[in-house]
Amino acid sequence: MAVNLVIPQRNTIHAVPGVEIGITAAGIRKKDRPDLTVFKLTAGTTVAGVFTVNRFRAAPVIVCEEHLSGSTPIRALVINTGNANAGTAQEGLVRAKRMCSATAQALGLDERAVLPFSTGVILEPLPIDRIEAGIPKAVAGLGIDQWFEAAHSIMTTDTLPKIYSTQVQIQGKTVTITGISKGAGMIRPNMATMLGYLATDAAISQPLLQTMIREIADQSFNRITVDGDMSTNDSFIMMATGHSGLAIEKNTDAGYPELKTALTDAAKDLACKIVRDAEGATKFMTIAVQDASSRDEALKVAYSIAHSPLVKTAFFASDPNLGRILAAIGYAGINDLDVSKTRLWLGDVLVASAGGRDPDYREEDGQRVMRESEILVRVSLGRGKVSETVYTCDFSHEYVSINADYRS
Amino acid sequence: MAVNLVIPQRNTIHAVPGVEIGITAAGIRKKDRPDLTVFKLTAGTTVAGVFTVNRFRAAPVIVCEEHLSGSTPIRALVINTGNANAGTAQEGLVRAKRMCSATAQALGLDERAVLPFSTGVILEPLPIDRIEAGIPKAVAGLGIDQWFEAAHSIMTTDTLPKIYSTQVQIQGKTVTITGISKGAGMIRPNMATMLGYLATDAAISQPLLQTMIREIADQSFNRITVDGDMSTNDSFIMMATGHSGLAIEKNTDAGYPELKTALTDAAKDLACKIVRDAEGATKFMTIAVQDASSRDEALKVAYSIAHSPLVKTAFFASDPNLGRILAAIGYAGINDLDVSKTRLWLGDVLVASAGGRDPDYREEDGQRVMRESEILVRVSLGRGKVSETVYTCDFSHEYVSINADYRS
Repeated sequence: MAVNLVIPQRNTIHAVPGVEIGITAAGIRKKDRPDLTVFKLTAGTTVAGVFTVNRFRAAPVIVCEEHLSGSTPIRALVINTGNANAGTAQEGLVRAKRMCSATAQALGLDERAVLPFSTGVILEPLPIDRIEAGIPKAVAGLGIDQWFEAAHSIMTTDTLPKIYSTQVQIQGKTVTITGISKGAGMIRPNMATMLGYLATDAAISQPLLQTMIREIADQSFNRITVDGDMSTNDSFIMMATGHSGLAIEKNTDAGYPELKTALTDAAKDLACKIVRDAEGATKFMTIAVQDASSRDEALKVAYSIAHSPLVKTAFFASDPNLGRILAAIGYAGINDLDVSKTRLWLGDVLVASAGGRDPDYREEDGQRVMRESEILVRVSLGRGKVSETVYTCDFSHEYVSINADYRS
Repeated sequence: MAVNLVIPQRNTIHAVPGVEIGITAAGIRKKDRPDLTVFKLTAGTTVAGVFTVNRFRAAPVIVCEEHLSGSTPIRALVINTGNANAGTAQEGLVRAKRMCSATAQALGLDERAVLPFSTGVILEPLPIDRIEAGIPKAVAGLGIDQWFEAAHSIMTTDTLPKIYSTQVQIQGKTVTITGISKGAGMIRPNMATMLGYLATDAAISQPLLQTMIREIADQSFNRITVDGDMSTNDSFIMMATGHSGLAIEKNTDAGYPELKTALTDAAKDLACKIVRDAEGATKFMTIAVQDASSRDEALKVAYSIAHSPLVKTAFFASDPNLGRILAAIGYAGINDLDVSKTRLWLGDVLVASAGGRDPDYREEDGQRVMRESEILVRVSLGRGKVSETVYTCDFSHEYVSINADYRS
């Protein structure tokens, strides 16, 4: 029951020159389901990542950070589903490194050139033997045109694959941007989402890529929430192979703004696809908070609305129960909020102003907006000029069913 | 489907000398349902209150604070259900004051001697004409033995009334303590709960009562959460009539510790009854966080667990999906948390230690605890000596149903 999630046709997905992908079914949790994915990156590719700030962060996240901060250029990624390798203490780290060693061996690389990723159940030992047995098979199948299959092979409770691909002309060069993501529950990223991988064949210098990934994450994966539960494994990776001939060194270089916009659009699309496929979602909600005095307070209000179970169940019911939204604005933590300056719109309908129901508001107008599957909730705080936008979904019976059954 | 909520027999409820209660069906939202309640307090009664910190706080809350801070002693309360008089701007204040005037007129008091309370739907105009017509009828029925009926007449989505009554011997005097509360959703009080009223016939000086109510709220109504949604109308009121002959002026007086303990027990019982009757609840969970370095961090971890939809749905399913609890501890916002020092128990079963699953943990032991209807989740942070406890419930299909239907 994903909400307006568009899956592009397989033949419209552009391979990214310099990136090869291999996939196998290693039997990690279920038999005969593709669950192990290897990315091989051409020499010279720059790679940057942002990761969960959960203190119980998973072993592969710790290893990713270690390898990204080292001096060995990253040349491969290895991703398993079915097990998160989180809450697994020291032994988890040993196994995450064994994933890297096995991949390095199969590709003729140093193990520090490999980034490992795991997603699935927390607190279970990673079945490393099956992963080690699977890696050579995944590597044997490496090819440049397997993005579509990779979008499937990284799924867990996702009902649909998430993939984005485009080509843009920048400075006379054709630049390809293709990415995939996964995630449906335990989604309230802070630095990244469950898993997101975005590749381009532009060349981007390492320091610039590091800056860009944080800025792009803050407009995409760091602006979505399903249930407010921040995962232990959130990881978002950007890769720039350089094969297109476009080379960007600094943010003042010609072509930078266009490339940044194109990459941001891609990341936003992949992030919003996670919300569209959120567990049990029937509506996609954009929460835009305007006229705040700081980014922090705009986000506080946006997340307060986006996380309220009462707001989310009212949207599920298509009930314009607007008092619940006002209550969530009120408890967002802005101690000197003057409610008489706050305004609230549902879509284009002004529903509340001056601390109460707007005199011109009619229930049937609110009802009309609430029946849509894509809803804009807009709040003006009347305190300043800062805006922030967060993307979320409603809260349905299906969410409870999925999460009461997930392990069984 | 309330969880082990005990309703005392009507004939075991002790009237509080000095407190009279009158009730009527004013037709505020539904016909022929008792929905308007008046408390009349004897001269000399001290009264203190704590209220929601939601910035969209309701008109009656604003009027309560104004009247409590004035010089006129409080002599009456008037409480309606069916409409919260919240998000109603200036006109809401006018109507809250009209509730006070009508009550004052019927009882021969100054309107500043009356505290008004409203609970129900937000953002709808209060039907003040029906309330004004009902007040004389409620006053006409005043009597000392209507606590049981009052516990019913303040209900909204509550399925059961919440009432507590006891008598204790202190300094040779028989002291009566009786209270009622209401609330089932939009429960994450900060200063108080939806509505709670606790009366005693001890005499307690006004400054001491003011101090005590904050301390007692912080061990009871400020430690419960159902859905993390802080209401616009939370109010908790304590009344001390003095009729028992026990008089407490300062916290060094003889009898103070016993009275404080008895009142705290009463407030905890009334607060936990709200959780037991929470919308859709099937389990009552006590979240105890120990060995924290501050109260703030203990509460952050406790609420992070108590608010996690993934944790709450796992409890609904009786599934010991402990990774979800670890994830919630990890994202609670303690940036220097050393997960290797964190331990987690379900009931008496140690499930996680040293950053991972405890070596002696067996899934069937976790499963056994999860099947209970009362579950203790205990976390040791290994950072200091502070403990805090929060009470909450699971998250079920029924919660979604109730909140998707509430207005219809």
